[in-house]
Amino acid sequence: MDEVAYQRGRAKRAELFGPDAESAVSYLTELAPDLERIVMENLFGGFFCRSELDPKVRSLCTVAVLAALGGRDGQVRYHIKGALNMGCSKQEVVEVLMHLLFYAGLPSASNGLRIAKDVFKEHGEGAEEKHGGN
Amino acid sequence: MDEVAYQRGRAKRAELFGPDAESAVSYLTELAPDLERIVMENLFGGFFCRSELDPKVRSLCTVAVLAALGGRDGQVRYHIKGALNMGCSKQEVVEVLMHLLFYAGLPSASNGLRIAKDVFKEHGEGAEEKHGGN
Amino acid sequence: MDEVAYQRGRAKRAELFGPDAESAVSYLTELAPDLERIVMENLFGGFFCRSELDPKVRSLCTVAVLAALGGRDGQVRYHIKGALNMGCSKQEVVEVLMHLLFYAGLPSASNGLRIAKDVFKEHGEGAEEKHGGN
Amino acid sequence: MDEVAYQRGRAKRAELFGPDAESAVSYLTELAPDLERIVMENLFGGFFCRSELDPKVRSLCTVAVLAALGGRDGQVRYHIKGALNMGCSKQEVVEVLMHLLFYAGLPSASNGLRIAKDVFKEHGEGAEEKHGGN
Amino acid sequence: MDEVAYQRGRAKRAELFGPDAESAVSYLTELAPDLERIVMENLFGGFFCRSELDPKVRSLCTVAVLAALGGRDGQVRYHIKGALNMGCSKQEVVEVLMHLLFYAGLPSASNGLRIAKDVFKEHGEGAEEKHGGN
Amino acid sequence: MDEVAYQRGRAKRAELFGPDAESAVSYLTELAPDLERIVMENLFGGFFCRSELDPKVRSLCTVAVLAALGGRDGQVRYHIKGALNMGCSKQEVVEVLMHLLFYAGLPSASNGLRIAKDVFKEHGEGAEEKHGGN
Repeated sequence: MDEVAYQRGRAKRAELFGPDAESAVSYLTELAPDLERIVMENLFGGFFCRSELDPKVRSLCTVAVLAALGGRDGQVRYHIKGALNMGCSKQEVVEVLMHLLFYAGLPSASNGLRIAKDVFKEHGEGAEEKHGGN
Repeated sequence: MDEVAYQRGRAKRAELFGPDAESAVSYLTELAPDLERIVMENLFGGFFCRSELDPKVRSLCTVAVLAALGGRDGQVRYHIKGALNMGCSKQEVVEVLMHLLFYAGLPSASNGLRIAKDVFKEHGEGAEEKHGGN
Repeated sequence: MDEVAYQRGRAKRAELFGPDAESAVSYLTELAPDLERIVMENLFGGFFCRSELDPKVRSLCTVAVLAALGGRDGQVRYHIKGALNMGCSKQEVVEVLMHLLFYAGLPSASNGLRIAKDVFKEHGEGAEEKHGGN
Repeated sequence: MDEVAYQRGRAKRAELFGPDAESAVSYLTELAPDLERIVMENLFGGFFCRSELDPKVRSLCTVAVLAALGGRDGQVRYHIKGALNMGCSKQEVVEVLMHLLFYAGLPSASNGLRIAKDVFKEHGEGAEEKHGGN
Repeated sequence: MDEVAYQRGRAKRAELFGPDAESAVSYLTELAPDLERIVMENLFGGFFCRSELDPKVRSLCTVAVLAALGGRDGQVRYHIKGALNMGCSKQEVVEVLMHLLFYAGLPSASNGLRIAKDVFKEHGEGAEEKHGGN
Repeated sequence: MDEVAYQRGRAKRAELFGPDAESAVSYLTELAPDLERIVMENLFGGFFCRSELDPKVRSLCTVAVLAALGGRDGQVRYHIKGALNMGCSKQEVVEVLMHLLFYAGLPSASNGLRIAKDVFKEHGEGAEEKHGGN
């Protein structure tokens, strides 16, 4: 156990997905605390904190993979939000999802863009509340 | 840009899925108009208009692929409707979905048949309204 | 047709999933009775009745495969219930789903664990009703 | 066990894939004879013999599904051969594989077409030997 | 870094796959040492060492998942070997692969059984060399 | 047909994959010239030329998606080469493939890294021939 990496992971997850993300996966902590710890220490507190790859690129690749695989709509939603929170523009998210047309097919691209529209709407509203504009 | 192919695509999509299909994917036109144009010109106004393959066969193959891949329920629904609108019988749609039992597994076949039952019900009702019988 | 295997399959399915499972897939019997017969005789009345593999192991492998493939939430739910009904402990189900982290990715593991939490809750309550305890 | 269906399945498989297909999967008969029997009776002696779907359409859907799923090159090869032996034209096989561009992505379409070219070459040569022309 | 878990992982991997497994993935250590460390500490030195699940069941679930997903032949081969080394019988491996017929389709089942036959042959020969019989 | 976009696509493909890429997919031009035209005009001459996304990011997302989906080794190889030719560092390619550990599983990550090692070796040698160093 690496408590420093664990707390770094919790902070990074909150930075990516907002403060509500933790309660959304409370079933992981409850049923599989060892998995939750591995993920916090090595994914959110590990890979997502590595400086070897631009955080924006990491988030865009994550969105692309999840939308391409299909059947992972909840995760696509979180990571589109994460990409925006890492500083990606909406257009960059759209470009990456469009690109799936030729590498995973129209249903993956279209499904990802449908979710993106929802997230963009929420994100715009959230940003307006916080910053008075978008 | 090929405006003729684009309009041919819009017409073919309406022929496949009915007049409501366009508004259902308004997010594509809004977020990714270049993707939407590629799809209209080359898929609906292109592949779906090619005479080299019977339109019924093209629709049945599309249904089979989408149900096999999984996680694409919305698209399966549209293309089952499309297959019926191209003149496929309900039994042909059922046969193609049954066949998935051995090539993609029971969940793909069963999921496709569950969606087919819904579409058949709506289609029968729509047909009754229009034609006074099915 | 092998009526003995068919009835053995219906009984095994009820043993795995409870008495409601049959009505939940009534569309199979209605639209694709030949598929339903093949599945009853050879899967539920066949593979699930074979003594060459511990029924608990068979159920755990089924859960693992369905959660790994993605886009099959309904089937994951049924087979987690089935694993518990075959005598698997909740911990064994959790272990198998955790293991997917490294063989199919976090979304598959997390999605499976989310469904497991729901099933465990219902199962506990059902067990309390029947047995007065869990 | 249904010996009539089993023998019908063996004959249909030979009709689809040629006389060598049986020896190519001798490991199935050796390791999993019960699976082999299910497949012969219900897939090759069952689904592939059903008159409810044109055999050409069934073969084209099978090719489409296998190429779309990926990682199944050997089976794609057999079923392209099967489609030709059922009377599909090379152009119909090509159309179905092209169509995957938009439903499973370029790698699935391209991989299927690469295999198709090989099969067409062998098939043409085989046909010339037997019929003196193609 | 947890050196104890890392060494436990290396030992477990050798127990599963034999002493040659390490050199077979030397590219991981070379290109992605942090990934290799995560995998050793948490998968081989972690999940595969957990007493909450019978090691035989864990190996059989791994084989099932890998064969079901497709396109992972090298890993299927290693984990079939691992299952045998954990004490699974050949028949148990065969049963798990047969079961894929109905949950991932014939190509997954057949491909897994083809690989199993190869591994069984090597394993039998290896066992004969060491034990003078099988 | 858009000859300008087509030629732009051929040039971009050569820039990504080198001059040999065209002959490697001559079967596409031969069997499915209309698909080849769509891909040249809209993927290589379209998406890969759009300035809305950094070409390096586009290539890294492509590598991630292809390796995640599995069963597409040939395409993974080409697009790793393409990423390097677009100016990605080897470390960026490695990071993206490592990241798959948690989003698609170890087999996808490991397989991608195995291919990357091969490409890096060839690329280094090619670079040495051309530039006298790497």
